[in-house]
Amino acid sequence: MKNKSIGIQVKKEENMSSWYEEVCLKSELVEFSKVKGFMVIRPKGYSIWEKIQEEFEKIVNKPLGVKNAYFPLLIPESFFKKEAEHAEGFTPEVAWIDKELTKDSERLAIRPTSETIMYNSYSKWIRSYKDLPLKINQWCNIVRWETKATRLFLRTREFLWQEGHNVYETPEECEKETVEIIKRYKKLVENLLAIPVLVGKKSDKEKFAGALHTYTIESFMPDGKALQCGTSHNLGEGFAKAFNISFLGRDEKKHFPFQNSWGLSTRLIGGLVMTHSDNSGLVLPPNVSENKVVIIPLIFKDKKEKVIKKSHEICKKLKKFGPILDDSEDYSPGYKFSEYELKGIPLRIEIGPRDLENESVTLVRRDTKEKAQVKSKNIVKEVSKILKNMQNEMFEKAKKRMENSIVNVNSKEEFEKAIKNKKLIKMGWCGETSCEEKIKEETGATTRCVLLKKEKPLGKCPFCSKKAKEVMYFSKSY
Amino acid sequence: MKNKSIGIQVKKEENMSSWYEEVCLKSELVEFSKVKGFMVIRPKGYSIWEKIQEEFEKIVNKPLGVKNAYFPLLIPESFFKKEAEHAEGFTPEVAWIDKELTKDSERLAIRPTSETIMYNSYSKWIRSYKDLPLKINQWCNIVRWETKATRLFLRTREFLWQEGHNVYETPEECEKETVEIIKRYKKLVENLLAIPVLVGKKSDKEKFAGALHTYTIESFMPDGKALQCGTSHNLGEGFAKAFNISFLGRDEKKHFPFQNSWGLSTRLIGGLVMTHSDNSGLVLPPNVSENKVVIIPLIFKDKKEKVIKKSHEICKKLKKFGPILDDSEDYSPGYKFSEYELKGIPLRIEIGPRDLENESVTLVRRDTKEKAQVKSKNIVKEVSKILKNMQNEMFEKAKKRMENSIVNVNSKEEFEKAIKNKKLIKMGWCGETSCEEKIKEETGATTRCVLLKKEKPLGKCPFCSKKAKEVMYFSKSY
Repeated sequence: MKNKSIGIQVKKEENMSSWYEEVCLKSELVEFSKVKGFMVIRPKGYSIWEKIQEEFEKIVNKPLGVKNAYFPLLIPESFFKKEAEHAEGFTPEVAWIDKELTKDSERLAIRPTSETIMYNSYSKWIRSYKDLPLKINQWCNIVRWETKATRLFLRTREFLWQEGHNVYETPEECEKETVEIIKRYKKLVENLLAIPVLVGKKSDKEKFAGALHTYTIESFMPDGKALQCGTSHNLGEGFAKAFNISFLGRDEKKHFPFQNSWGLSTRLIGGLVMTHSDNSGLVLPPNVSENKVVIIPLIFKDKKEKVIKKSHEICKKLKKFGPILDDSEDYSPGYKFSEYELKGIPLRIEIGPRDLENESVTLVRRDTKEKAQVKSKNIVKEVSKILKNMQNEMFEKAKKRMENSIVNVNSKEEFEKAIKNKKLIKMGWCGETSCEEKIKEETGATTRCVLLKKEKPLGKCPFCSKKAKEVMYFSKSY
Repeated sequence: MKNKSIGIQVKKEENMSSWYEEVCLKSELVEFSKVKGFMVIRPKGYSIWEKIQEEFEKIVNKPLGVKNAYFPLLIPESFFKKEAEHAEGFTPEVAWIDKELTKDSERLAIRPTSETIMYNSYSKWIRSYKDLPLKINQWCNIVRWETKATRLFLRTREFLWQEGHNVYETPEECEKETVEIIKRYKKLVENLLAIPVLVGKKSDKEKFAGALHTYTIESFMPDGKALQCGTSHNLGEGFAKAFNISFLGRDEKKHFPFQNSWGLSTRLIGGLVMTHSDNSGLVLPPNVSENKVVIIPLIFKDKKEKVIKKSHEICKKLKKFGPILDDSEDYSPGYKFSEYELKGIPLRIEIGPRDLENESVTLVRRDTKEKAQVKSKNIVKEVSKILKNMQNEMFEKAKKRMENSIVNVNSKEEFEKAIKNKKLIKMGWCGETSCEEKIKEETGATTRCVLLKKEKPLGKCPFCSKKAKEVMYFSKSY
């Protein structure tokens, strides 16, 4: 019998970046591809993505009447050029196809986002106000040739995402739903992944290339960096004009419609790992874990068969929790405990000879490592209750951490100190791009968002001394 | 009011190829991309793909214990070269990335299939017989730079598919499950899409590049061409050796495992259209249709409000069938009938003033255009029954057509005549590749498969006069 699993070798509080990589790899969520910047999403990691997709269907697609579709991977160069700001924003990251294949025609890009190819189709599909609203989403792979250092899930040259692209008759409808979508993203991320987020509006500098403005959900990681978890862009009429999407209105006249686009990606899985996991490995909120329970019989010579039989009985009862039963005798219980902690199974159930006598089992929560003794006959109810509590408490804990990280800042010195202390800064700000650029240069911090729920700014911007126009959140970021 | 919808302009029996394209486009399943050989799968087409995915989860993944994962889009050239036959088979169709991006390293290909990149990972994941069987599937996009003329769904440079890749300890297990999978494909395609198929083994010439042998499901289209609908390849130990996938066996010695790979693609949607649709447009088997019912109130001055009210009541009752209620007054009922026939809604419900009196409604099946008068109070039961019958009868009709197309052939002359008459040929055959090539050259027909359910060959091969070794099916094909 082996004795101890080779667990995580680096501590989260000491080197979060190495710790993060170790947890991702050793819990078997993902691995590096031979090609720099690409990743293999293993079944365990992919099952989290499938949970997100499932929840997305319920929270976004169904209630809003969005339909899924699929647009081509390769986009002609001429499409890119149609919306100038958009083209400028994305061209540096585009991966092109070998010219040999396209020598008779224009260059083809692997999609870094699909606005241009989708809106080319939209211009053919939309004729009348009766064709609106049009609401289409696609789940697909995206390639952006990052030049910065890549990191598993957080910044990769290929990632998976959904991109929604809606078209409306009026700017009011468009704005209203752009906001509605970011609120639904918040609900999805908080309820399913137990990641608390701020929901707000991006600065002009940080908005999407080609948008009027961008809404965002921003989470705050334990290492003092924010992670953008999803965005919803109000595109106004800009793309409609560039792609000649127009419709005959109720007034029998030609109009340009109003558009939004909105997306979230596999980056969320990275946020999930950083938010909850610990020095024993992965910690998953029960709602997102495929296997919510592992049953480990404590096998001794004494009552061996009875213990195993009981374990199988319990396993059968817990079917809806996707239980794993590990009754192999190659490894010690201690080794198994570490192994399943590393892999983030939310609840461990231990069954030993003594438990048989008491008609009970021992439950151990992955997040707190709290133990509870419960009667076997109540097992389904007890497991349900504990998993529910665990989900809520993981969210509350992360929320408290984020809230405690927020620091009100009134001077440059306070700003610099807060960044040094890995805080999330809240500051009355002038709102000007030049000031934003200066802050980034001097402190390394960027604007996160102005909350949807308006906060009133007081006094002056500490950096440029102009009147504070809004309350902006700043921090370092992924 | 407009009078008549602009329906399909070409007849199926006169020019199947143009008819097919018109049905695909006008029913809004799909459209051409600006980039040659690429397609936009519109929401209506994509919903069929989602139904296939849902059914696949139930029929293949769950019962066989297959997990989904995601591997990178881009594959390093060196991976391709590892398995010689495979490399030779796929290299001509590979789309490479612009050399500018990869000048410091080797060339990168957009995946034409993922054996090589997956098995590179497998070689790290598999250590012991305890890691086997390993069963992984991915849903993804594939690019093959076809040089032949492309056709919507049937042959496109990009398509969507699933590719399953399993690894086993023994050749027996591997072979057994390779066959099991092709049988499950048959079940999925026949039950969901109502497309009858032959299930059998491919000739050596037609097998997958790098496989020991390939199983296939083959459907037979109304224009006398076969369509390969799914394949399952027994790869033996070849890839394991090329990629150095090995495991420590129960005997404590090193072994190479046995592998299979298996896939089906969006091409199935093309088969669906060709098999069932008619000169009025798309016909969809109810099981695969998102909206199974359309309700059209016959609006006259008389009792207008009551008719509309009744229609809404009926619509509410039929919620589980995804009903469309079209009570717009811009178009005549006749126009609407044509429109929803074009789009392939399985069942039309007409509600007029007279129906109110009789407390009944009129149901019209899309496939047969048969009408039935049913009592409103029985509507849910009646609709269920009709849809169920429709699903079964569509399959039976297609099956009968395929069976009636099969012709026993004993001479070259009979073979040529059968091909001219667009038949599916059944023939005692020598089994030799040289003979197969000659047949293709002389007649344009290729081998489809030798049935799983063995048939006994008699006499000699009509083409080379050698002893007939197996009963092979031949036809033209897509």
